[in-house]
Amino acid sequence: MDRPLDKRLVDDICIANGLRNAHELGVASIRQLVSVVSNIERETGERYIRMEQGVPGLDAEQIGVEAECEALRRGVGAKYPLITGIDPLNKAARRFIKAFVDIDIPEECIVPTVGSMQGAFATILTLSQLRKQRDTVLFIDPCFPVQKAQCRVLGVRVEAFDVVEYRGEKLEAKLEEHLSSGRISGIIFSNPNNPSWMCLTEQELEIIGRMATKYDCIAVEDLAYLNMDFREDRSRPFEPPYQPTVGRYTENCVHLLSSSKIFSYAGQRGAVVAINPGVAKRCFDDIGVRYGNDGEFRRNFIYSIVYVLSAGVTHSVQYAMAAMFDAACEGRLDFVGHTREYARRAARVKEIMQRNGFHVVYDNDCGREVSDGFFFTFGYKDMTSEQLINKLIYYGVSAIALGSTGSAREGLRGCVSNLTEDQYDEFDRRLQLFSRDY
Amino acid sequence: MDRPLDKRLVDDICIANGLRNAHELGVASIRQLVSVVSNIERETGERYIRMEQGVPGLDAEQIGVEAECEALRRGVGAKYPLITGIDPLNKAARRFIKAFVDIDIPEECIVPTVGSMQGAFATILTLSQLRKQRDTVLFIDPCFPVQKAQCRVLGVRVEAFDVVEYRGEKLEAKLEEHLSSGRISGIIFSNPNNPSWMCLTEQELEIIGRMATKYDCIAVEDLAYLNMDFREDRSRPFEPPYQPTVGRYTENCVHLLSSSKIFSYAGQRGAVVAINPGVAKRCFDDIGVRYGNDGEFRRNFIYSIVYVLSAGVTHSVQYAMAAMFDAACEGRLDFVGHTREYARRAARVKEIMQRNGFHVVYDNDCGREVSDGFFFTFGYKDMTSEQLINKLIYYGVSAIALGSTGSAREGLRGCVSNLTEDQYDEFDRRLQLFSRDY
Repeated sequence: MDRPLDKRLVDDICIANGLRNAHELGVASIRQLVSVVSNIERETGERYIRMEQGVPGLDAEQIGVEAECEALRRGVGAKYPLITGIDPLNKAARRFIKAFVDIDIPEECIVPTVGSMQGAFATILTLSQLRKQRDTVLFIDPCFPVQKAQCRVLGVRVEAFDVVEYRGEKLEAKLEEHLSSGRISGIIFSNPNNPSWMCLTEQELEIIGRMATKYDCIAVEDLAYLNMDFREDRSRPFEPPYQPTVGRYTENCVHLLSSSKIFSYAGQRGAVVAINPGVAKRCFDDIGVRYGNDGEFRRNFIYSIVYVLSAGVTHSVQYAMAAMFDAACEGRLDFVGHTREYARRAARVKEIMQRNGFHVVYDNDCGREVSDGFFFTFGYKDMTSEQLINKLIYYGVSAIALGSTGSAREGLRGCVSNLTEDQYDEFDRRLQLFSRDY
Repeated sequence: MDRPLDKRLVDDICIANGLRNAHELGVASIRQLVSVVSNIERETGERYIRMEQGVPGLDAEQIGVEAECEALRRGVGAKYPLITGIDPLNKAARRFIKAFVDIDIPEECIVPTVGSMQGAFATILTLSQLRKQRDTVLFIDPCFPVQKAQCRVLGVRVEAFDVVEYRGEKLEAKLEEHLSSGRISGIIFSNPNNPSWMCLTEQELEIIGRMATKYDCIAVEDLAYLNMDFREDRSRPFEPPYQPTVGRYTENCVHLLSSSKIFSYAGQRGAVVAINPGVAKRCFDDIGVRYGNDGEFRRNFIYSIVYVLSAGVTHSVQYAMAAMFDAACEGRLDFVGHTREYARRAARVKEIMQRNGFHVVYDNDCGREVSDGFFFTFGYKDMTSEQLINKLIYYGVSAIALGSTGSAREGLRGCVSNLTEDQYDEFDRRLQLFSRDY
């Protein structure tokens, strides 16, 4: 590309995709942006530097594929999967969580879900029914916007704050400000964080855990990018350093572990929810009244809620997850090593961007530079998120505005997973063109 | 077995499974009953005649298995599946619906779901948000009880009536009685009916369709047992006779098609929701306000609701469904012929039962004898449902009480899918023992 794309053409495509004009990309959903970019690529023949979607850019782990095919040939396709999870999966997941997070979750407290999308939906739904007066979920922003969309579907009230201004010990007072109302049922956060790739520290997780205990609400820890803080090497099973977790600081917690990114297995929709036994075995009156039972969290999570969502998780996928968890525990599947490829790509992309006048928006993790990984954030001079994406789109570069993630800062989120070796030079050329124009 | 099982032992197992005493099997959930029976089998070494669960008793269709393995080896596991469905699936499903139901549903109105469990959940959820004043779902009972459980989870009001007293033209007045309140958003029914195996006739479907149009509510037709009314041969694609459907009589309808029973593919959790374009393209204000869009049914069903439930359906399973739908359309997969095995088993089971003094509870379909098929219903003399299951349990026979299905009649639902060739004689012996005792 040696000049920007035809403005008229691009603008027409934006409008054809349901945007009111071509300057609304800042509020477009990820899905709309994907559609706009795909259409522009088709119309112009120009391949974009596509960074808008968080999809695996590696092959699915072959150990999972083989286990799935084998299970299918053994005939599991005809049999309803156990809603509590097949035995090998629960055993392997327990072991995996011990090996890479170093916490103990009993097998019966591990429940497979159709991706962490279903895991989060079921968790938010359960939280909203445990205790009537707890009608609100607190998000530690920036966040994965679809989890807020789940709250909208369920009519669950949301509070949120951008954590970037409250790192370290400042987090405590901010959490108390929200939790003291007594309305918060759960605190949702991801670590590493989607979209900012900030990583909460042990100190911050201790605060979240202590506050969850103090105000008796449940911390929901989304570990989609488990051990992808590549500043330290967490690739060895059963050896420190481990993934930091709120689970070391409170019993009031639930962990979401997805195979989508760690095993590049997004297509098959496999995940587990690991419930701290302190939560799992606890009884809550309101949900007990609703379903006519003792109100036990685990019983209601599995049989009242997860069951009616999909009657379980695809049978063969449960075998795939079991095989991959076990292989990781036994050092036969180095998922940390495999996903480290994202850090290599991110380092190159950031270097090119910074050379062309861009900056990293969330650059700092309590004094340390953020890790290179799956996502990164970037801005340009004093442009707003809207201005930046609405200009970059003509230069064949796509990413999503941070506003949709609850961020208080101006900039875009990029995902490096789709970048291929042959694109870096072209990326550089496009940004040179852009920085000459602005 | 030459005498009933030890009473004390069975009773203790009931109590260990969360029942207050051994005479509560009539109100046990299917899941609890499965657990009780499995425990008794383990403790006594006696194999039950297990008829409590509706699980496929045939092998998964091999065409699906092969297509899935091939897709996995091609690498689909790493890629998020299209939330609207992969192109080959939507094309094949459209063709399949034309071939076996003889209605036209455009590809873009067909949406894959994680089993019809997710299909029903998403449909009920969508219906409940379309129009605020429509806060109730009407069930034509007897029904699959989990769909009512879904309403309980969602806080959706339920009305219901047992259709057996309102067959034929009497259905119209009964429907009007419920619909005239203006609160009904949708009418849910299955055809063939789970649990009674009654089949609604064209006349009855015409009434439901006409009433759905008149009162502007949406008929939700669960076709889990598509073309398993074996009284006529509907095995030939694109040739009559076809599956009767409400879709011939109203635009206000949605069809649920699952691969679980028709292709014995329950383990893999694949289904599609086929939305009549008259509903799919229609806009509803209240849901539009909720999600900030034009309120189109299809847009909100897919992007606001199905998306947040699981981010789509397992990628390889979509390829399996596409392959099986296509094979059925091309006469290479005779799913009607394969599932006819259930009718053969049902005929033998019913004959043995009637010879031993049992009767079929729902025996009549507007003057015709009900079809033999996957489910059947049975009673004994004037015993209540509770009495019957609480006695049969000692004779190594299990089934579920009709009460849980909204039935107004006394009796049990049995599923013949698990019966094996070597069990019929033993079944006869047990019933002889039972009928000697009662």
